Amino acid sequence: MVLDFYFDFASGYSYFAARRIEWLAAAHGATVRWHPVLLPALTQVTGVLPSPVVPLKWRYVTRDMARTAQEEAIPFNPSAAFPQMLIAPGRAMLWIRAAHGEQAALAFARTCFQAYYADGVDIADKAVLLGIAEGQGIDGTAFLAGIEDPAIKQQFKQGSEDALAQGVFGVPFVLADGEPFWGYDRFGQLERWLAAAPRRAA
Amino acid sequence: MVLDFYFDFASGYSYFAARRIEWLAAAHGATVRWHPVLLPALTQVTGVLPSPVVPLKWRYVTRDMARTAQEEAIPFNPSAAFPQMLIAPGRAMLWIRAAHGEQAALAFARTCFQAYYADGVDIADKAVLLGIAEGQGIDGTAFLAGIEDPAIKQQFKQGSEDALAQGVFGVPFVLADGEPFWGYDRFGQLERWLAAAPRRAA
Repeated sequence: MVLDFYFDFASGYSYFAARRIEWLAAAHGATVRWHPVLLPALTQVTGVLPSPVVPLKWRYVTRDMARTAQEEAIPFNPSAAFPQMLIAPGRAMLWIRAAHGEQAALAFARTCFQAYYADGVDIADKAVLLGIAEGQGIDGTAFLAGIEDPAIKQQFKQGSEDALAQGVFGVPFVLADGEPFWGYDRFGQLERWLAAAPRRAA
Repeated sequence: MVLDFYFDFASGYSYFAARRIEWLAAAHGATVRWHPVLLPALTQVTGVLPSPVVPLKWRYVTRDMARTAQEEAIPFNPSAAFPQMLIAPGRAMLWIRAAHGEQAALAFARTCFQAYYADGVDIADKAVLLGIAEGQGIDGTAFLAGIEDPAIKQQFKQGSEDALAQGVFGVPFVLADGEPFWGYDRFGQLERWLAAAPRRAA
């Protein structure tokens, strides 16, 4: 069983999902493929407005995120720069995956999420990203060149197009062998779906 | 504790919520106030696109509704006319409330939801609404005049404006003594919030 996990570093619910997805997969013998995407690239195509630009909705969403974080004891102290569009972290993750492998890319992604949503650090700042990469033993000069590499830029852009082609119109989004689950609020349903998978196969 | 419950007969998730809200309230000694609103009147103001007009999203939502219904054993066999804008059922409920009281209004609302989402009957059809009302012993001539009454039309319109003024931008939406919960997928959180209310008060 493969879980294709689509997320945007700019999305608070993606942070919640990122904290839980590997545990959920491990509990059911599934493998996770992490796909950083750019939510505005998805919403631009569908015409759906991102929550932060709808004041009435955003006021609710900030409250809902805080309430969910409190209920599930998730560290949640977002950067003052939140919400904002984030492009560099996604590109950086893809470059690290290409240059240093999957485990380094996931460690980088986790540290970015943690920094932005729990420690209040602005990961739009390239100096911050550089610090995270160097903290993992990655060469800083190569890293800064990597996130400006046209091939990486193109790969990140293509990732959002590929997501749309799979029916992914928002984040977080999980395709569990093709079965779609949109939103962190569907993780309970996703868990029950995974638990029932052996029965479906039998 | 009062639960202000905002719903639109046109919303499948409102049907799910309507089936559960009184049980949830009863379990925690709360009272429900039912507020029919017109979702397009809310989304027109916020600029949010209703799901049915976003094909990629609607394809997912139909799947999600069916999956939720199956998981929770909710009878779900929507009318072929679903989704569509529904105005008459909301007006009819308000008129019945004014003319025949709250219990008659709630019985009418439940029968409408049931007919549309479980029995596949199109409640946009005024003959269907008339049948439901007459089945409750309501005079048909008065009923048909009632749903065209300008005062009732105005009251239904005002209901959506009042909802917006309370921060209600979607349906189903519950305000639990002011605490906002948007979506049927927040009913678990709402239940835990109600369960914790005595502790908060202490």
